[in-house]
Amino acid sequence: MNTQFSIPKSGPGLYEFTDDVARWVARQETSEGLLTLFVRHTSASLVIQENADPEVQTDLQAFFHKLVPPTTDPSMAYLTHTYEGPDDMPAHIKAALLPTHVSIPVLDGALALGTWQGVYLFEHRNRPHQRSVVAMLR
Amino acid sequence: MNTQFSIPKSGPGLYEFTDDVARWVARQETSEGLLTLFVRHTSASLVIQENADPEVQTDLQAFFHKLVPPTTDPSMAYLTHTYEGPDDMPAHIKAALLPTHVSIPVLDGALALGTWQGVYLFEHRNRPHQRSVVAMLR
Amino acid sequence: MNTQFSIPKSGPGLYEFTDDVARWVARQETSEGLLTLFVRHTSASLVIQENADPEVQTDLQAFFHKLVPPTTDPSMAYLTHTYEGPDDMPAHIKAALLPTHVSIPVLDGALALGTWQGVYLFEHRNRPHQRSVVAMLR
Repeated sequence: MNTQFSIPKSGPGLYEFTDDVARWVARQETSEGLLTLFVRHTSASLVIQENADPEVQTDLQAFFHKLVPPTTDPSMAYLTHTYEGPDDMPAHIKAALLPTHVSIPVLDGALALGTWQGVYLFEHRNRPHQRSVVAMLR
Repeated sequence: MNTQFSIPKSGPGLYEFTDDVARWVARQETSEGLLTLFVRHTSASLVIQENADPEVQTDLQAFFHKLVPPTTDPSMAYLTHTYEGPDDMPAHIKAALLPTHVSIPVLDGALALGTWQGVYLFEHRNRPHQRSVVAMLR
Repeated sequence: MNTQFSIPKSGPGLYEFTDDVARWVARQETSEGLLTLFVRHTSASLVIQENADPEVQTDLQAFFHKLVPPTTDPSMAYLTHTYEGPDDMPAHIKAALLPTHVSIPVLDGALALGTWQGVYLFEHRNRPHQRSVVAMLR
């Protein structure tokens, strides 16, 4: 079984969509299997992170912004792929550092996530994007 | 087929459990498939790393400690999620930088790991934790 | 179904092998499934990255070289696993930061990659290596 999630994003940051995924998994006939989510872009990522305190998400975004600042930052002057904007190459680097796909076991028809785990799209670009995530349950 | 590994940890570092996984895989009837290990926490990771020289594991731990120091370090003063201790938010950041799950092909009833590859739980928190890892073979 | 790709590398950098993978997938009878690629080494990685502008690949390599310089760099003096050469422990660290495996949904008999996504082996060692990648389609 497979489907596609289309996630409209209004700027950089983490967007949770655990409930959308859980609802789709619950509707499938498979009670045991492996769910894989795959983002079809090279400037956004998928992460499993704490879903309790929203500060975890803003802190994560702040850390990666410091580790990989925009190419307008003098420390990034060595980068050459800059014509798509100062947030473009940093977005590709973040997309290399963070997952393109996550696989989550499904047990008893539900995602086997830990209590504090949520599924997030991590958007790295500044301007709004529609992001496409393929879901497959096997 | 699925199972769960419960790994008691006494502090930060890498803990190998390749043999536990290999033994479980050997007992299953599937001779070809995909094994997925998934850690149900947001402050610990799963990594596949060199299993020959223990210095590789301590060096890895040292690198990530320098890249993401405790929030008591002045360079981390921008972080806001600090009330669970100085090692908490850095643990979440490390859990974003490192894998939550690993998938390993199983061929002829055995893990298709390279000669020098071992499977490790990478614990990021200071105080002892019991960590739960779901294993699924499809 | 499974196979193995053997990729000769002449030095550090990103080597695309999307076409090899796509051709093998097209020859299989499975029209829907999950393809997993797994690199059997701890000093090379697999990444899904932009395949349009080659500068993205050289910039990625430059970023990781700055983040994890050779152990001859004074900032890396704290590392202890150095007897296999100044690029050895940094290669292990990069292999922890970057994926050991990628899983890509297969739909209608083809990889469900986005328009700009390619599959790369990211070699971290200086001297030439033959790298082995296991592919499994389930």
